This record gives sequence, C-alpha cells and structure tokens, in this order.
Amino acid sequence: MNSENSMSIDPPPPLAITMGCPVGIGPEIIVKFFHDAFVDQKNLPAMAVIVIGNTNVLLRTAGELGISLNIQPWHPGDPVKPDVVSVFDSDDHPLDDLSWGKPTLATSTAMIRYIEDGVRLISRGALSGMVTCPISKISLQRAGSPFPGHTEMLASLTGSSRYRMMMAGKRLKVVLATIHEPLARISSLLTITEIQDCIAMTVDSLQHDFGCQNPRIAVAGLNPHCGENGMFGSEEETCITPAISGYDGPGEISGPWPPDTVFYQAAGGDYDAVVAMYHDQGLIPFKLLHFKDGVNVTLGLPIVRTSVDHGTAYDIAGQGLADPASLKAAIRMAADICSHRAGEGR
Amino acid sequence: MNSENSMSIDPPPPLAITMGCPVGIGPEIIVKFFHDAFVDQKNLPAMAVIVIGNTNVLLRTAGELGISLNIQPWHPGDPVKPDVVSVFDSDDHPLDDLSWGKPTLATSTAMIRYIEDGVRLISRGALSGMVTCPISKISLQRAGSPFPGHTEMLASLTGSSRYRMMMAGKRLKVVLATIHEPLARISSLLTITEIQDCIAMTVDSLQHDFGCQNPRIAVAGLNPHCGENGMFGSEEETCITPAISGYDGPGEISGPWPPDTVFYQAAGGDYDAVVAMYHDQGLIPFKLLHFKDGVNVTLGLPIVRTSVDHGTAYDIAGQGLADPASLKAAIRMAADICSHRAGEGR
Repeated sequence: MNSENSMSIDPPPPLAITMGCPVGIGPEIIVKFFHDAFVDQKNLPAMAVIVIGNTNVLLRTAGELGISLNIQPWHPGDPVKPDVVSVFDSDDHPLDDLSWGKPTLATSTAMIRYIEDGVRLISRGALSGMVTCPISKISLQRAGSPFPGHTEMLASLTGSSRYRMMMAGKRLKVVLATIHEPLARISSLLTITEIQDCIAMTVDSLQHDFGCQNPRIAVAGLNPHCGENGMFGSEEETCITPAISGYDGPGEISGPWPPDTVFYQAAGGDYDAVVAMYHDQGLIPFKLLHFKDGVNVTLGLPIVRTSVDHGTAYDIAGQGLADPASLKAAIRMAADICSHRAGEGR
Repeated sequence: MNSENSMSIDPPPPLAITMGCPVGIGPEIIVKFFHDAFVDQKNLPAMAVIVIGNTNVLLRTAGELGISLNIQPWHPGDPVKPDVVSVFDSDDHPLDDLSWGKPTLATSTAMIRYIEDGVRLISRGALSGMVTCPISKISLQRAGSPFPGHTEMLASLTGSSRYRMMMAGKRLKVVLATIHEPLARISSLLTITEIQDCIAMTVDSLQHDFGCQNPRIAVAGLNPHCGENGMFGSEEETCITPAISGYDGPGEISGPWPPDTVFYQAAGGDYDAVVAMYHDQGLIPFKLLHFKDGVNVTLGLPIVRTSVDHGTAYDIAGQGLADPASLKAAIRMAADICSHRAGEGR
C-alpha cells in the first residue's frame, strides 16, 4: 500500500477509555495520560482516543492536579481534535459532589453506564474498541449489578459465552486455565477440555490480535518439576499431557514444562505465551516483570477490550500518586490489536 | 580494627568446593571458576578456596577446555597458594576412564566420599565451610545411598533434625514451608508449627548468616488474593495468620500477603526474605530473577553449606557449555556467611 492510497482511507473510529469508578484513580490516570501525550507527541497512540465518562469529574481532577487540559464534549462521528480531550458524557448527572475513595449510588450507576455505552458505540461502529479503567466490586454491588466484574459484564453485553483473561506485557503473556479458585481445588478443576480451550483461545488471540502467524505456546505443568514422573503429583500425566497431545489446532504447542523455569524461558523469548494452570502460577511471574505496565486483554469477545492491570485504588485516589503506565500500555495494546484485526478485515 | 591488628590474625581455614558427580558439569564449572578468578583477581573470593575431588578429573577437564591451570594436591593445614588450584583427593581411584554424562559405581561412590570428607574436615576445623557442586539422584541410588539428595545426607552427617532450603540471590531470598509435594496436597500439609518453624529459621539465618539485625520477613498467602476473605480458600485465616500472630521470636514478621505481589515488593527492597507456602510459589519468582546466579543455602546445619542452584546437567557435560555463575555466587555467599558467623564467634 503506498502512502497516497493510505491517505485516502478514512481513519478508523477512535478508541474509547471508559472512566471507571469516578472516585477511584481512573480520572487521574486519564488526565495524566492525555497530559503526557500532549506534552510529548511521540507518546500519542496510533489511533485517536476519546473518553466515555464525565466532563465535570475530569475537569475537577485536572484542576486538582494543576494540569491544564482542553476538555470538550464529543459525539459519535465527531472528529477527534488534536490537543483536546474529547469526552462522551454518558449521563446528565453532574457528579459534582464527590469524595475521592467514597463510591455512591450515583457513581456506581454512572460507572456501569460508561461500559454499556462503550459496547453500544462499538457495536454501532462509532468506536474501534475500549480500554477500561478500574471499577470495584463494592460499586457493582451497590448499583445492584449481577456481575462480579468487568469481564463478566462485557461477556453478557456482547453475548459471549467463552472468554478468558490474558495478562500481556512486552516480555510475557500469560493465559490462565483457572482463575479465582482456592489452591486446594485447582487439581479437581483442571480438565482436558478446559486446557485445550485455553490453548485454542491463546493461539487465536496471538494470531489475530498480535499478528503472530505460528504462535509458540508453552503449557505449564501443575506440580513442582512437573511431578517428577508421578512422585509429586500426576495431573501432568492424566490431564495436561493428553490435552496437549490431543489438541489439533494451529500453533506450536509444547509442555507440560516445569513451572519454575517456563516463565523464565518465555520471558527470554522462547515462547509467545504461557498457558498457566492457576492464578498465582501465572500472576506471580507476570507481576514481577510487568507490575506497572501490565495489560489485561479479554479474549473471546467480539469487541476489542483491554484493561489496566490494577484496581480503583480508593486508598490513594485524589492524591496525585496514581501511575498512568498501565493505562498507557493498555491504550497502545488496544490500538495494536485494532490495527491487526483491521488488517485481516475482522 | 586497624590493618596492623588484622594482619596478625590467622586467616580462617579455606572453604571447600565439593566436586559433585565427576561426570556432570561440576569439574567444568570448578575449572572455569578458578580460571576466571586467576585471570581477574578481583573475582577472587574473600577466603581461600580448595577443591575436594579428584585431581585427574580436573586436569582432564582443564585440558579438554584448553585452560591452563596449576592443579596441586592439598592436605589439611597446608597453606593455599595463590594461582594454584589446591585439591584434596578424596580417594585413590584415578577415575581416568570416564564418559561425560555416564555415571558409574566408581563415580557415584567418589561423589559421596567428597561430601563425607567435607563434613569431616569442617568438623575438625580444617575447613570453614563447603560449597557443593551437583550430584544426581541416579548416582546416589547406584551407590546404594539411602538419601534422596545432598541436603538430607548433610543433615544426617551432622546430626541435624531441623533443616530447610533457602534460595538466595541479591534481589530475593525465599524459604519454603513445603517443598517437593503435589500441589493438591499443600493445603493439608501446612501447619501453624511448620510455618512458625520456617519463620524462625529464616530470621535466624538472616541475623547470623547475613548480618541483618532485625529481618523483615514477608509471609505469603496460599490462595489468590489471600483467599479474598474466604471466597477462594481459607488457609490464610485458619493457619497462616495464626502462625504469624502467634510467633513471638525476633524479626519483623508480616503477612499473609497476596502471592502475586509479595515477591515484587520483596525484590524491590521492602522485605529481606519471603516465606513461601510451596515450591513453585517461591521458585517461580526466584528463578525469574536469579536463574543463573541463584544460590541454595541450607539452614539449620551446624556447618556452613551453600550449593549451586542447578543439577549435574549430564546432557551438556563435557561440552564446554556450563556456566559457572551460580558456583561463583555460591562461593561468594559461603564466604560472606563464614565471615558473619566468625564475627559472632559462632
């Protein structure tokens, strides 16, 4: 494609950042992200970015941080002006009587609206994808939401029955076969089908979201030294090895590998992603390498969605201490995924 | 202490490196260690170092590697000459008909003798401590040894009933509450007594081996997010928290901390060591940070013993590929521990 042709193609619709809980650190990291991007244009993501949230809250946040930003309302189809923070105001509630770290019914309802509006605008083609700032379980409950978290809500809104979290960073990508479960139950929860599904979704994402033609996936064992021939556990033999050998999809799948070395090998470039058997097996190495710039990518949704890898951090909200590194990484990654999917006409 | 005084004090007895399995990578990393130390004297450890092993094997190894070294026999009480590799020959067997990677009855018997001689010479005051090169389970079995590994053998030889492994590096030190066990059994193996014993031995080692007066010990939880108030497991409430609150020894003990962040915090300097609940919880982050230069320190023995953090690597023995980094780190650490213990008159 030459530059003349590419000039004639309409730019893709913008990415949206949902503001998350209005009294968490979402507004602060959004303000810091735009400030840093405007100050140093090389920090700008490859796509236009708007916010789905509340103008009042962002103005107040910028004011408190002493950051001067041009914040303006945005409507679907509007161009996104450079040096302007374009905001789609999801509701008419001014949210002008808030205390940092203290969610109310109004903030909780608003927070859910941002997500719903994001999905709606993406499905109408007005947005390319969404990057979500953190929400809290306590706020979801307060608003009467039936969902335990973001991911389940997005799955429901998009009618997706199969979805998984990938934790993604430059050095390591990890997909979990089981997530929020007691350690003692992991063994009984692992099945050949579940592991194969996890492998298949990881391969699919690496191919279509990350442009990796023949992904090399390492599957971790469950027990120390992979059970050392059954001496310390046998799930490798009864479940993980059969899952790998029975998988007949694309990609180069190997394992089970000893858990204490496979993440080192993957971080060194031997694999494109690791399928981990349980939460901490994957999250301990991931957070060690990507504590500040880790990104959560939801696999299996029909829309592009990345998320910051941290919570609402109510304890430090409003103090100017929040680090926008994970948001920046999540925006960059969402833009990359959009571009890979667009290249494939997805 | 001024320099005149320190000159008049007898130097401590040397440290010994046991050669490990003669057909593993032990001889190669020993030859490389001395070569590097002699070439660049700033690599020399703070104490004299001898080898307990076999002169023939070391000469052959150096020859194959094209490394010129002055290798001479050493006997207890002999001074250790600079630029000379001093070897205590543990047996009369010439071991001159060996194949790399192929242990025999002769190599297996010799390998055990090095360890026994090390303990004997330390207990007679002829050596300060020992740094062990790797042995293999298969060789132990071939020689009819009842021990599954080095540590159990050393515990028996020194009459130690309480002992534990610490994995130690510059950025992270980890002690394990359980070791080679199936993941599904960890929950049933954890007890308040075991965790408290682990805390106490960690504190003792940090104080007396590492010169850390008031060690800050982080105790990891077992479940994701420490069970999130019992939603994903309750061992934190029933076992780990009571172990911490009931511990009344020295040190600053805190926890249980979420497993996926505590190692990041410890590596960042917030803690001097982490007590991990199971093998991979501790070894995944440790190997990610210290894959090449990790050291295994045995706590609870009356003698100083450190070990390389890798195996015999029969598959690459004799190929010149072995990395002496872990041996160098193990020697430096043993010398440091000897010096801390000597300072306390232990």
